[in-house]
Amino acid sequence: EFAKIDRHRQLRTGFPEVIWGADKTPEQITKIINLMRQDDGVVMATRIEAEVYQQLKQTIPDLMYYPTARICALSAPKTPSQIGKISILTAGTADIPVAEEAAVTGELCGFAVTRLWDVGVAGIHRLLSNRDVVYNADVLIVVAGMEGALPSVVAGMADCPVIAVPTSVGYGASFSGVAPLLTMLNSCAAGIGVVNIDNGFGAAILAGQILRTAKKISR
Amino acid sequence: EFAKIDRHRQLRTGFPEVIWGADKTPEQITKIINLMRQDDGVVMATRIEAEVYQQLKQTIPDLMYYPTARICALSAPKTPSQIGKISILTAGTADIPVAEEAAVTGELCGFAVTRLWDVGVAGIHRLLSNRDVVYNADVLIVVAGMEGALPSVVAGMADCPVIAVPTSVGYGASFSGVAPLLTMLNSCAAGIGVVNIDNGFGAAILAGQILRTAKKISR
Amino acid sequence: EFAKIDRHRQLRTGFPEVIWGADKTPEQITKIINLMRQDDGVVMATRIEAEVYQQLKQTIPDLMYYPTARICALSAPKTPSQIGKISILTAGTADIPVAEEAAVTGELCGFAVTRLWDVGVAGIHRLLSNRDVVYNADVLIVVAGMEGALPSVVAGMADCPVIAVPTSVGYGASFSGVAPLLTMLNSCAAGIGVVNIDNGFGAAILAGQILRTAKKISR
Amino acid sequence: EFAKIDRHRQLRTGFPEVIWGADKTPEQITKIINLMRQDDGVVMATRIEAEVYQQLKQTIPDLMYYPTARICALSAPKTPSQIGKISILTAGTADIPVAEEAAVTGELCGFAVTRLWDVGVAGIHRLLSNRDVVYNADVLIVVAGMEGALPSVVAGMADCPVIAVPTSVGYGASFSGVAPLLTMLNSCAAGIGVVNIDNGFGAAILAGQILRTAKKISR
Amino acid sequence: EFAKIDRHRQLRTGFPEVIWGADKTPEQITKIINLMRQDDGVVMATRIEAEVYQQLKQTIPDLMYYPTARICALSAPKTPSQIGKISILTAGTADIPVAEEAAVTGELCGFAVTRLWDVGVAGIHRLLSNRDVVYNADVLIVVAGMEGALPSVVAGMADCPVIAVPTSVGYGASFSGVAPLLTMLNSCAAGIGVVNIDNGFGAAILAGQILRTAKKISR
Amino acid sequence: EFAKIDRHRQLRTGFPEVIWGADKTPEQITKIINLMRQDDGVVMATRIEAEVYQQLKQTIPDLMYYPTARICALSAPKTPSQIGKISILTAGTADIPVAEEAAVTGELCGFAVTRLWDVGVAGIHRLLSNRDVVYNADVLIVVAGMEGALPSVVAGMADCPVIAVPTSVGYGASFSGVAPLLTMLNSCAAGIGVVNIDNGFGAAILAGQILRTAKKISR
Amino acid sequence: EFAKIDRHRQLRTGFPEVIWGADKTPEQITKIINLMRQDDGVVMATRIEAEVYQQLKQTIPDLMYYPTARICALSAPKTPSQIGKISILTAGTADIPVAEEAAVTGELCGFAVTRLWDVGVAGIHRLLSNRDVVYNADVLIVVAGMEGALPSVVAGMADCPVIAVPTSVGYGASFSGVAPLLTMLNSCAAGIGVVNIDNGFGAAILAGQILRTAKKISR
Amino acid sequence: EFAKIDRHRQLRTGFPEVIWGADKTPEQITKIINLMRQDDGVVMATRIEAEVYQQLKQTIPDLMYYPTARICALSAPKTPSQIGKISILTAGTADIPVAEEAAVTGELCGFAVTRLWDVGVAGIHRLLSNRDVVYNADVLIVVAGMEGALPSVVAGMADCPVIAVPTSVGYGASFSGVAPLLTMLNSCAAGIGVVNIDNGFGAAILAGQILRTAKKISR
Ligand SMILES: Nc1ncnc2c1ncn2[C@@H]1O[C@H](COP(=O)(O)O)[C@@H](O)[C@H]1O
Ligand SMILES: Nc1ncnc2c1ncn2[C@@H]1O[C@H](COP(=O)(O)O)[C@@H](O)[C@H]1O
Ligand SMILES: Nc1ncnc2c1ncn2[C@@H]1O[C@H](COP(=O)(O)O)[C@@H](O)[C@H]1O
Ligand SMILES: Nc1ncnc2c1ncn2[C@@H]1O[C@H](COP(=O)(O)O)[C@@H](O)[C@H]1O
Ligand SMILES: [Mg+2]
Ligand SMILES: [Mg+2]
Ligand SMILES: [Mg+2]
Ligand SMILES: [Mg+2]
Ligand SMILES: [Mg+2]
Ligand SMILES: [Mg+2]
Ligand SMILES: [Mg+2]
Ligand SMILES: [Mg+2]
Repeated sequence: EFAKIDRHRQLRTGFPEVIWGADKTPEQITKIINLMRQDDGVVMATRIEAEVYQQLKQTIPDLMYYPTARICALSAPKTPSQIGKISILTAGTADIPVAEEAAVTGELCGFAVTRLWDVGVAGIHRLLSNRDVVYNADVLIVVAGMEGALPSVVAGMADCPVIAVPTSVGYGASFSGVAPLLTMLNSCAAGIGVVNIDNGFGAAILAGQILRTAKKISR
Repeated sequence: EFAKIDRHRQLRTGFPEVIWGADKTPEQITKIINLMRQDDGVVMATRIEAEVYQQLKQTIPDLMYYPTARICALSAPKTPSQIGKISILTAGTADIPVAEEAAVTGELCGFAVTRLWDVGVAGIHRLLSNRDVVYNADVLIVVAGMEGALPSVVAGMADCPVIAVPTSVGYGASFSGVAPLLTMLNSCAAGIGVVNIDNGFGAAILAGQILRTAKKISR
Repeated sequence: EFAKIDRHRQLRTGFPEVIWGADKTPEQITKIINLMRQDDGVVMATRIEAEVYQQLKQTIPDLMYYPTARICALSAPKTPSQIGKISILTAGTADIPVAEEAAVTGELCGFAVTRLWDVGVAGIHRLLSNRDVVYNADVLIVVAGMEGALPSVVAGMADCPVIAVPTSVGYGASFSGVAPLLTMLNSCAAGIGVVNIDNGFGAAILAGQILRTAKKISR
Repeated sequence: EFAKIDRHRQLRTGFPEVIWGADKTPEQITKIINLMRQDDGVVMATRIEAEVYQQLKQTIPDLMYYPTARICALSAPKTPSQIGKISILTAGTADIPVAEEAAVTGELCGFAVTRLWDVGVAGIHRLLSNRDVVYNADVLIVVAGMEGALPSVVAGMADCPVIAVPTSVGYGASFSGVAPLLTMLNSCAAGIGVVNIDNGFGAAILAGQILRTAKKISR
Repeated sequence: EFAKIDRHRQLRTGFPEVIWGADKTPEQITKIINLMRQDDGVVMATRIEAEVYQQLKQTIPDLMYYPTARICALSAPKTPSQIGKISILTAGTADIPVAEEAAVTGELCGFAVTRLWDVGVAGIHRLLSNRDVVYNADVLIVVAGMEGALPSVVAGMADCPVIAVPTSVGYGASFSGVAPLLTMLNSCAAGIGVVNIDNGFGAAILAGQILRTAKKISR
Repeated sequence: EFAKIDRHRQLRTGFPEVIWGADKTPEQITKIINLMRQDDGVVMATRIEAEVYQQLKQTIPDLMYYPTARICALSAPKTPSQIGKISILTAGTADIPVAEEAAVTGELCGFAVTRLWDVGVAGIHRLLSNRDVVYNADVLIVVAGMEGALPSVVAGMADCPVIAVPTSVGYGASFSGVAPLLTMLNSCAAGIGVVNIDNGFGAAILAGQILRTAKKISR
Repeated sequence: EFAKIDRHRQLRTGFPEVIWGADKTPEQITKIINLMRQDDGVVMATRIEAEVYQQLKQTIPDLMYYPTARICALSAPKTPSQIGKISILTAGTADIPVAEEAAVTGELCGFAVTRLWDVGVAGIHRLLSNRDVVYNADVLIVVAGMEGALPSVVAGMADCPVIAVPTSVGYGASFSGVAPLLTMLNSCAAGIGVVNIDNGFGAAILAGQILRTAKKISR
Repeated sequence: EFAKIDRHRQLRTGFPEVIWGADKTPEQITKIINLMRQDDGVVMATRIEAEVYQQLKQTIPDLMYYPTARICALSAPKTPSQIGKISILTAGTADIPVAEEAAVTGELCGFAVTRLWDVGVAGIHRLLSNRDVVYNADVLIVVAGMEGALPSVVAGMADCPVIAVPTSVGYGASFSGVAPLLTMLNSCAAGIGVVNIDNGFGAAILAGQILRTAKKISR
């Protein structure tokens, strides 16, 4: 028995356990998906490369795939069913896959997601002329590699929590995401929570938890 | 003019700019406090050692001091005026000063704060027998040094967002907080936002933002 | 003469020198296996990929292979012949190969091994509902990547020595196993000995030494 | 309530919780000692500087002090009451304080301890002419700073488990104990468990657990 | 003869060798100042603490001191004699000493310097409402600790070279200036040259070289 | 809309936004090139491998390629149109690709570029017998891997700004360019600005900004 | 002109410049070999993979290859012509390629070389029973990966200089050679000079310089 | 018995064991000096601060002190008695204490030592005009902090072995000597052996071993 599915999670948090695809064989992933489909809730796996999806699809024909996000799931995003709006921003074009991992996770979990790509601080006017995306959000996910400065600027404009996602985009002294990670942890702008490098999934779940708390409080 | 107070912040986020006391002279801190007292809202400074407070008090007689938290402020925590409950946990006794920085900040900003100290994972029964503190929270702040494993376990039990605060408590291979910082960033439990080492203040502001967004949505 | 087999080791410790396969050519491994088979005791090699095994098998037809553990050996595990029970736990599914390296090594050396996979701290109930595996052990090997918190929790429940094995499973700020390594070295739970990242083999030999000393004393 | 004493530990492991003195105020230490003295078992604190001990002694007159080990305790080592012999070795003179932390902890817990100081590998004849200390042990604790090579050599001679303790002794590229820590984790000699830099205490507790397991098995 | 003054430098670059005060005895500094005063050009020393200055002044009565910049010199800034305007910005109040090291060096070398303090990106409106300081410069020196994001934003607005100076201001994961250093090296905004952590002096000399080359070309 | 072209940059700095090719798909690069060709100014992309260029050329037949520099562009270097001379030096042969990235960028932007390859400090006579390349420059770009010492020596000879570019050339303790990066940041020779590891492009843009400032001042 | 051969080196040191093959194209290597063959002295290149050698051989038919050492040269080792004996030791089998780089370089330069492989400290008797190789040397090169402890032990037995070569052999916390590098730099045994990770070539040249100095002094 | 003096060392290598003073109490140092004075040969201790020397002198009246080198010894340097000349160079003034540790050690062991201070590469003419110190040496010790480039340049001029000593002199990104250490390990100039940061003593002993081997061979 190579996997123990955490079924409490769906009940407790409203979000299911999600399969981390990166270090599993296609056989293992198939078995877990089939086990999980018996339960209620979203069944999805992250870090699934296109070739792995092709293999999985042969025995799970109803499995869908979101290639930029590298996510596969048994269901598709529908009209948002949850309260609260998530805005997701990227600093550059190369950060989009991580941002899509967050976006698709959020949408599969029922949230409304707004995307704003390539508004990094080296051309601040691009962000300033899209201010409304920042102001309209209930929670912000800001994704950036290289120097990772975007969350600081966004948090200085926003009136809601900011989740900062460093990416491994960059070269040389970016050290595969260490540079933006440190930038985000050291931000002078308070009200930022940081997740692991390239962890779009975790950012979306945290955003979901934040919005879910809103619902709980309002009762 | 050595300081430009960010007066937008209070309006935008409901939380004031807070004075970072660590790298400023007492003269600088005094001037900034006096400038800020003309505005509405909380006036407070963090990282104030007891001796510095004694100096400040001479020219600002109504300044109060919270020694464990190393915070001074022009006002005291009152009956909570804001919606939402913050629970703050520590793994050990030595993590309390960082946790108090979070607690006092939260209370000065008007939130109800519950404290639970010394429930680290090496004696898991201590946490399990205080489960209600976890379950009753709307947002959790979990403070831990050394191996920093407490937020993972707590996030696996909670149904609300968890803010993880690594501390510099420890020795040897804890590298002044790097070990718990990495632990928290790598947590298998999704729904955790991490802040800088020893940053109790930032954790409280993020908690406040989460609860504020919750209030906004729930209207 | 590219290798000097350490024949004292079998006599001294009851465990043979084991061939580290990773940086050797198939020709070198074959020669060493043939040299060692002349002695008493277990002949085995670790870090053998499936293709390398296929090459070795052509000239050593009685060589067996344990693919998940990536171990090949001239003998198979039999009914345990040594005193003492080893329990091996993993935090996740992806940690299984390292844990199997420990398990197969232990079994080839004659010990009884109990396996418990995927009981990481992010869903603590999975561990709590398998408590007996912890309580029944004479020595515990706990294998974990990402945040590596499982050994701390296990050591807080166990009444026997805990050997902690960090794995390179994870991404981003896990830094190929550095994060769980630091977590384990900094554990607040005393009674933990740590081995190198992914070193399932070393953990099993240490467990064997512990049980062997126990046997020696108890006479 | 700043501290929750882990009373299960004495029952479960035979060893009490021990007070980590480094980040506590004398008042906190005093309160915890007085709480713990009501239980059975050893009451001790580590990382107590001489001046702190002088303060503690004023309200706890029966408190004893072991200055090199920087340990204070309510009891003294007596004739060994536990089964099994611990040998403790250091590479140099400067490693003695860490080794004494291990030795005094072991003795307070009832074990027989043999000390062998200053037998580092740069003059290997010093170790070779003290071979019997290695051969007579049931468990070995080997303490070394700078290059930290002693545990490798000792483990290559011993027939029992070796606990390796890196120390922060050294300068420059020893990086406060990182160099010997890495040396020990990478040892080619199997059967070594490593603890945190300067963690003599943890080494002694692990040694105790190992010997206790021996007792348990022999029943 | 403990010091060999580099007299070519003044001739070659128009800027003198400057005495690095931090690792020298007051006696050594005094001797070097007296040697250098025989030449033409500015005689100055950096990293001079107030107490050291008091000692130096006893034997060099005409020595002046700039306490925030920690610079002492035999001359004072005068009406700018060189072509080109340097603007110096800081992200926070605590970065001012490093910025003053740059400013006083620049002024002693004859340049016009404009100062703009505390305009970090967490409150971007503070920078935006001081745009003219950026637009009026011929070369910009941008000084920032913590996340160090200010140079990226400034370089995205400026039409002249930007010299980025990381400072050791911050705590935890700022690692004494490593975080802002990495941020600056990874900036998406091209046209930034980075100097060592806290190296205000080097930034001013580079600015001077840039303006001097400008003058040379423009002839 | 995956990319927001920063059209202000050409106007503001005289240099266009340049496409970072490394993390983009050929489709994305093609779309951006076609968008940018509608504007005035240079259209170029860096970090383009030969195979990617072959793909791009199929739909953009007038695209040119500079293989050593790994740059593709819609235009070729012409007779220099800008004021000021850039000299580019390398320490070794293996540093040439990074230096060519700088050289081609500089030439495409209209500057006169002089190349001097393989004059590293281990044979200082090679540099000393090419002194004129140093003396004739208005700005110097010095490219070095391994120990990265060349910029220090060059800056000690030059009378103009030096831009230092560390490269990832080397092995072992060069840590993919960290060693030369640190060397350059710590240079005793003042007047050096450092860019990211392998960032030939950024060095050329900074050189261009420096020369452009010269032009501006001289008006 | 992509390469400037350092012809002074042969005259000055008695050893030629040697071509570093790793970052050069076969065309570049061919051109440099042909340039250098016009001079006196050894012509050789290091870090040449077998396939590269096959390419080079087509245009340079008299080029010889030493596959384990990954060296190609225009001449073969002959009867030693130089004064002084070099002994080269490795800790393990996997360190042999680096040791052979040193051995072949030494032999091509005319020195007598004795090889002793696989005598690491984890089985110290293997070294002790080969003591004469240590005692008969005029200079020792000791090559070790993983924990890298062999040079310390050897230097404690030898009466001649020891050159320590860390290798990238190992896994996990060996960090590609950092662990043995630190071990060697921190050795308690004085009289050790360390070279870069995997730098067998540099060790041989240093050994040659040492023996050459002997010759010089004796005149 | 806290110290085991390695008496073989004097016999074997011609150089005595030397007392490392930094982590020992004055009582320990006194006892060891008194033990060692009974043997033949030099008795000396390094890393002795002035106050410690004052304490030692009270019970060892014939103890001499070399304050810049921080060495105390029972004898003084005399007319050189050993064959071979050591030249010691520093890059800056602040490196002198480490260089003096090497110089005094060399002189106490009987060698002729030439000193050349403050000839760092940022003003290369200072080195070039002192060429003879390089050419006249039989072995060179080159001491440098900050960027640590001097050994590369010197080794490119010298015809004898170069021992490179990185120092902790510098700030910011010199990381207490890591920057020059990496520079020296990565030097393109072959024939350099590196010792630990600030290890002037070890450099002198290695120089002594080199000259001793030279003498042995030349017989
Ligand atoms: N992309 C992702 N990043 C981080 N964590 C993930 C990701 N996808 C799944 N997980 C988490 O990984 C765990 C599943 O691991 P496993 O049991 O190995 O499948 C669950 O706790 C998930 O919430
Ligand atoms: N010297 C020591 N090194 C490592 N851990 C220690 C040491 N002394 C006490 N501990 C552990 O630290 C914990 C006590 O921490 P605290 O609750 O802060 O007193 C217990 O789990 C002890 O087992
Ligand atoms: N080789 C290069 N090195 C560093 N930055 C570059 C390079 N090429 C382009 N850039 C910059 O990267 C940014 C473009 O990134 P992107 O929006 O992802 O295309 C622009 O700011 C360019 O100035
Ligand atoms: N295996 C090697 N390790 C270190 N340095 C080498 C090696 N082979 C050649 N070199 C040195 O590298 C330099 C040649 O570099 P290059 O000019 O790029 O061929 C010369 O200074 C050689 O002494
Ligand atoms: Mg872009
Ligand atoms: Mg506690
Ligand atoms: Mg799982
Ligand atoms: Mg000793
Ligand atoms: Mg401010
Ligand atoms: Mg070359
Ligand atoms: Mg071997
Ligand atoms: Mg100087």
